[in-house]
Amino acid sequence: MCNMVKNALGREVPKHIDGIGELKAFQGAFAYDPKGQKLAPKITKTFHGNDKIVDNIKKSLELCGIEDGMTISFHHHFRNGDYLVNMVIDEIAKMGIKDITVFASSLQSVHKPLINHIKNGVVTGIETSGLRGELGEAITRDKILDKPVIIRSHGGRPRAIESGESKIDIAFIAAPAADLYGNVNGVEGPTACGSMGYAMADAEYANKVVVVTDFMVPYPANPISIPQTLVDYVVKVDKIGDPKGIVSGATRVTKNPLELLIAERAFEAVVASGLVKEGFSFQAGTGGPSLAVAQFLREKMKTEGIKGSFVSGGITGHSVDMLKEGLFKTLLDVQCFDLKAVESIKSNPNHIEMSASFYANPHNKGCAANQLDIMIVSATEIDVDFNVNVITDSNGIIMGASGGHCDTAAGSKLSIVIAPLLRGRLPIVVDEVTTVVTPGETIDAVVTERGIAVNPRRKDLEALFKAAKLNVMSIQELKNIAEGLTGKPGKIQTTDEIVALVEYRDGTIIDTIRRVK
Amino acid sequence: MCNMVKNALGREVPKHIDGIGELKAFQGAFAYDPKGQKLAPKITKTFHGNDKIVDNIKKSLELCGIEDGMTISFHHHFRNGDYLVNMVIDEIAKMGIKDITVFASSLQSVHKPLINHIKNGVVTGIETSGLRGELGEAITRDKILDKPVIIRSHGGRPRAIESGESKIDIAFIAAPAADLYGNVNGVEGPTACGSMGYAMADAEYANKVVVVTDFMVPYPANPISIPQTLVDYVVKVDKIGDPKGIVSGATRVTKNPLELLIAERAFEAVVASGLVKEGFSFQAGTGGPSLAVAQFLREKMKTEGIKGSFVSGGITGHSVDMLKEGLFKTLLDVQCFDLKAVESIKSNPNHIEMSASFYANPHNKGCAANQLDIMIVSATEIDVDFNVNVITDSNGIIMGASGGHCDTAAGSKLSIVIAPLLRGRLPIVVDEVTTVVTPGETIDAVVTERGIAVNPRRKDLEALFKAAKLNVMSIQELKNIAEGLTGKPGKIQTTDEIVALVEYRDGTIIDTIRRVK
Repeated sequence: MCNMVKNALGREVPKHIDGIGELKAFQGAFAYDPKGQKLAPKITKTFHGNDKIVDNIKKSLELCGIEDGMTISFHHHFRNGDYLVNMVIDEIAKMGIKDITVFASSLQSVHKPLINHIKNGVVTGIETSGLRGELGEAITRDKILDKPVIIRSHGGRPRAIESGESKIDIAFIAAPAADLYGNVNGVEGPTACGSMGYAMADAEYANKVVVVTDFMVPYPANPISIPQTLVDYVVKVDKIGDPKGIVSGATRVTKNPLELLIAERAFEAVVASGLVKEGFSFQAGTGGPSLAVAQFLREKMKTEGIKGSFVSGGITGHSVDMLKEGLFKTLLDVQCFDLKAVESIKSNPNHIEMSASFYANPHNKGCAANQLDIMIVSATEIDVDFNVNVITDSNGIIMGASGGHCDTAAGSKLSIVIAPLLRGRLPIVVDEVTTVVTPGETIDAVVTERGIAVNPRRKDLEALFKAAKLNVMSIQELKNIAEGLTGKPGKIQTTDEIVALVEYRDGTIIDTIRRVK
Repeated sequence: MCNMVKNALGREVPKHIDGIGELKAFQGAFAYDPKGQKLAPKITKTFHGNDKIVDNIKKSLELCGIEDGMTISFHHHFRNGDYLVNMVIDEIAKMGIKDITVFASSLQSVHKPLINHIKNGVVTGIETSGLRGELGEAITRDKILDKPVIIRSHGGRPRAIESGESKIDIAFIAAPAADLYGNVNGVEGPTACGSMGYAMADAEYANKVVVVTDFMVPYPANPISIPQTLVDYVVKVDKIGDPKGIVSGATRVTKNPLELLIAERAFEAVVASGLVKEGFSFQAGTGGPSLAVAQFLREKMKTEGIKGSFVSGGITGHSVDMLKEGLFKTLLDVQCFDLKAVESIKSNPNHIEMSASFYANPHNKGCAANQLDIMIVSATEIDVDFNVNVITDSNGIIMGASGGHCDTAAGSKLSIVIAPLLRGRLPIVVDEVTTVVTPGETIDAVVTERGIAVNPRRKDLEALFKAAKLNVMSIQELKNIAEGLTGKPGKIQTTDEIVALVEYRDGTIIDTIRRVK
């Protein structure tokens, strides 16, 4: 471990990893100054008669010049209903290709077959926002990959692509609808997923781009989310995904009394901040308590006649309802979470599709997260420095995703973590989170059922909360209450082996994830 | 002239010009193979609180670091109603800056004040699709610029930008509507112009991007034609253009009996080609005879129940009518020519805005022009090799624009020139055009009131025309008829001085324009 350095949060991070290269240690949420130019894709040449239709995925891989060591990208709008990652990597394996990096916007339980491809040397690198299920378990516990996984946020990923830090050899676009010249949209066909936001940077910067669809439409596809000008080949397959997995049913307002209580406390805090006013903007995660906060806000806005500006991020039916009711002017959508959102983005011109770079990239000329007033985020742990973990479980296993957590926390005027004080028998507020995904510097407050702690950097906010008679206490007090109930949690036993690097949105290493003993 | 070389059309073109650099001679419409990478714009960094609103144009120029020798870009959606070019260059002149290149998608009569800025050394370079009025006259006759003007097609311009051959220091976007973070659309406000297609490559590749608007909208502007992620500064001014000049009244179907006759002949030829069938695509220029051909097609489609795929290019109310009537499925719009088109692109989701690169760039992965079946173009001259001139007048003066002429001729399955055999007392069919804009290799036929000539490369087409009993003759015969009526036209007297380089869409030099004696 002589190759290590302490970053601005005091976390030991490597300076270099073979097969990945030099690494920059996290310097603070707004400290790192990027240099240089964006990646420059190759210039191509086409004229009429060029045909993009290819018989099958294998043929498209051959035409793209697939070879050992390449980076293949995927997007996760199909979530746990995705067929494409497995189809493509199976094909690559059959062709005898090795040493592939799977560069995905996120991976799900359905991608469990990657475990075998890793063990067989077909896949030797994974870069993703998150890992779930057996794949996360095998990587964290068994260290089946030699090279650490690189975890990126939804804003950090397009940043890495645009900057050229990540070079995509072949981007595969899972397309709900496509035409023969490669125009793609996400709103038609049996596997409609709505926004194609995460795939856009891939299409723009990859060396080769293959569109795979199960629904061909006449030229030109309309709307056009990914344009023909970026696409090399189009493959028609029987089925690119399972609609049931694509549109999750997980986006319901909680009915759990404890969660409703926390949501109400968070709502009071949001109101006390003074930001709920004409033209304000809002984002919340898709967990039940976050949606409950949104529900409370919705009632207040109706009662008081307040009209907001936009709701951003992954979009649910609840946001669609608020748009329809005229409570918000616009939805900015990087990913649709349910059928109502898919229907809405298809038919409502005020429901706007946005790229992940537009959403959250810190190194373009201004992302939507920078315009956010209020952001409600969740946490699996938060520590006394307000650092938040959303990637590893209480046992140290990777089971979550970085998502837009650190992006929106940094961009918004007010970022509030809502969480129960205990989850199971474990405190949520701890001395030091297992893994830092979002630095405390960008978190303004944490709301629990037992009290609200305000980041000492936000004296202004603390004054507002106190004036509103909210139950404000220090984060140490919150931690003490939790530990009083459960005792101090034991430290997770890990080896020195690094199984994942957690990149902050600016490309610096904010933390590592170690192999669990 | 020892620095000259003959290109594939036998035209003498320079190998090098000081202040411009090395030049490539035209090798054939599909011969040149581009190499290398696209231009890589600088990486920037933003976070919440970054403000883009700037008081005035002067301030924005200062913030962009304006200095001698820079290239400033503009787009021409406001046509002869544009105020921005003159406003910005006046400001630059007042600041004492010299040696500016005006990189415009096109220039109009309204830009006459550039003459003085050129004479004063403020402007020393012009790159544009066209020149009109006194500016074209002063450049061709008085050679007020030392460096030749570079003439580019609408597809060649984004190609030059993307390839880095043209480097834009500051792009000025004349924005009918913008929000405080730089999102722009063309469909709202008093100077609504519809599509923003020509400005998109500028925004994407310029080092600095300034949005100038007279109509601020709440965040986020909707729709978003140019996104905040590309914009550095936003300036609000009183007036960015004159709506009367923006929406021209010039797009009427001709009532001239001769033009109607030619249009009817062209319509017969188009029908004889066999391409007018279910799902076909179509584009025509905005001249009266072209619109008349479209009108004939429209009647046929209605009568026979034929439904086409798309109409592309600059869009007029006539195309909008055909969309509304269900005759075409989609409009692909790089530029709106009238109020009806502006209204339509605002409200009809089947009227799609496209970038100039999507429209016509030969060096992306496939432009819309490649999907065109039928293209009707005009000509000021066409020669016995089918080369077409649309840029210089009979007296050799630059008075037109390259536009999408050579792009669509190269992309479409069938490109037909329609023109009267004589214009005034001058033959249109000549031995050798004054200036080649579009190589004969990409022109399939020319239709005049006296007969139709088919390019010898298209024996198939000639057979179809003859089978349909059209009045087919050789292009030499057409020329002879014309010369029999008027005598052989005299050659324009020019000096050796090159006042403009005509770039083919692929960046090679297809011709030069010489100073008129």
